[in-house]
Amino acid sequence: MDYLSKIKSPIVLELEAFNRLFESTLSSSNPLLDCVVAHILQRQGKMMRPVLVLLAAKLYGEVSAATLHVAASLELLHNASLVHDDVVDESSERRGQASVNALFNNKVAVLSGDYLLATSLFQVGMTQHLSLVQIVSALGQDLADGELLQLANVNNMDFSEEVYFEVIRKKTAVLFAACTQAGALSAGASADRVEEARLLGEYIGLCFQIKDDIFDYYDSKQIGKPTGNDMMEGKLTLPALYVLRTASSDWAQEVAVRIKKGDASADERSHFIEFVKQKGGIEYATRVMHEYHRRACELLSSHPDTEVRAAMMAYLDYVIERTY
Amino acid sequence: MDYLSKIKSPIVLELEAFNRLFESTLSSSNPLLDCVVAHILQRQGKMMRPVLVLLAAKLYGEVSAATLHVAASLELLHNASLVHDDVVDESSERRGQASVNALFNNKVAVLSGDYLLATSLFQVGMTQHLSLVQIVSALGQDLADGELLQLANVNNMDFSEEVYFEVIRKKTAVLFAACTQAGALSAGASADRVEEARLLGEYIGLCFQIKDDIFDYYDSKQIGKPTGNDMMEGKLTLPALYVLRTASSDWAQEVAVRIKKGDASADERSHFIEFVKQKGGIEYATRVMHEYHRRACELLSSHPDTEVRAAMMAYLDYVIERTY
Repeated sequence: MDYLSKIKSPIVLELEAFNRLFESTLSSSNPLLDCVVAHILQRQGKMMRPVLVLLAAKLYGEVSAATLHVAASLELLHNASLVHDDVVDESSERRGQASVNALFNNKVAVLSGDYLLATSLFQVGMTQHLSLVQIVSALGQDLADGELLQLANVNNMDFSEEVYFEVIRKKTAVLFAACTQAGALSAGASADRVEEARLLGEYIGLCFQIKDDIFDYYDSKQIGKPTGNDMMEGKLTLPALYVLRTASSDWAQEVAVRIKKGDASADERSHFIEFVKQKGGIEYATRVMHEYHRRACELLSSHPDTEVRAAMMAYLDYVIERTY
Repeated sequence: MDYLSKIKSPIVLELEAFNRLFESTLSSSNPLLDCVVAHILQRQGKMMRPVLVLLAAKLYGEVSAATLHVAASLELLHNASLVHDDVVDESSERRGQASVNALFNNKVAVLSGDYLLATSLFQVGMTQHLSLVQIVSALGQDLADGELLQLANVNNMDFSEEVYFEVIRKKTAVLFAACTQAGALSAGASADRVEEARLLGEYIGLCFQIKDDIFDYYDSKQIGKPTGNDMMEGKLTLPALYVLRTASSDWAQEVAVRIKKGDASADERSHFIEFVKQKGGIEYATRVMHEYHRRACELLSSHPDTEVRAAMMAYLDYVIERTY
């Protein structure tokens, strides 16, 4: 059985109920908004975040109506943040499809992102559970804060891993952590278990982002981003930061500064990418990712050996094994 | 006593408590975000929306901790929507001060608007009152929907007042309606009274927007917008719609179409403004505004004659009498 079938097998019915709810949340009386929403729904992929909410709920209890609403809320918040990120990054594509700002314009993208955000809030209100409202709102703050931190960091010539982890915690890991935490909470888990669930999600999110950052060193049409896209935006990620710390090369330090300033040529960037690969940057990032994977597995090992635990294990493996 | 003193006199202490809370909601650990927030706080004006929440709470009961939190939530949502509107409208100024997008850039404006939105949600969660969460989230949807409707409407060559009222209901009146509704609800008013409060706010909001639209026909440095700014953005408001309906002038119809398409010259726009004034457009809009003012007063007349009712009456008068 492939990863995705194994992951989804214990939550097939719940996922159907989720899909029905999710589509119903987005019906509006505004034709322009409907166009934008239809466009966003088209690119809906594997629903990895709602799947994580549902799995966490089943791991710590049972899927409730609140689980479905908070899963919808988190998926809406994630989509809102993607729509706005594409405006911020001036991206014209996302996963091979035109971005909302490219297809319509920045105005429509900003406003429909706001609509998705407000709808996310509305859905979490439907859970009738104030702790869930707090999780979603704190997540919304963190995601915006994380992106702002990343913007400010482009001008920061400090190549420390500490700042890198602060950024990826806020812009990615918090979302996965909110999924597992909200799933467990919606299933009525105790405070200890909810905290364990949050930590599990955080480890998954860190794996997810490090894997994404490794992808940036290779060509992939499926991701719809060219190699070195992060560097084009002035971002240096874990593989590069490791090499800058360990390889004593004045050339690399100088190019790194130019990359951050946006002054590096295409040629310099591609040489720098090769240099990072040669000096073991990818292996290092992969090791760090496996360490978080190991910690996540350790948390799961205390749970009884059920189909749900196996599905969650498959989820963990999928995050680090996926090819796009 | 001037309007503002009369409006604020029954809620002096509550307003101080609100201000303390509001400033504390916006402290973050992110230096860039702190800069943006400091800039937004600088332009905080008369706090007309929080004042309305507090007055409504006192009119229907007493100001509670939930009243203060929901007032902060609504003021944050309003500010988020202003920051994003300035991006959408490409405005470089707001009330004589540089907009966030102009001072920083669009990226920072989009993300800090998102942060304010999420903080708004967090604050309404603090009320521990799910009906308040629903009011704020539905308001967030309506505000985005209203702006999108207005964008779509620029290409709509229908000059009906119906569409105008649909837009101003969604982009302005809902905010004032949410203020009074949330105020009453937070004070423990019954469902009937909460609905009355909502209607009161809606009338106030309609007056507020019609007054703003009338301002657009006159010069005012205090508003920080030139005469005919709406028309420059392809918007025709109540005074013009009335004249287009009642004066049979082919010239006016043609210029109106060019204004909506953004093809009218500055000269044509200023002639059109004079034509609208001559044909009684301003008087008509003023009459409509007074009709909503009358309905609002009627709702208030059923309340006992207290200092709070007098303050709310002063609020109503202020909205239609203000000179900027």
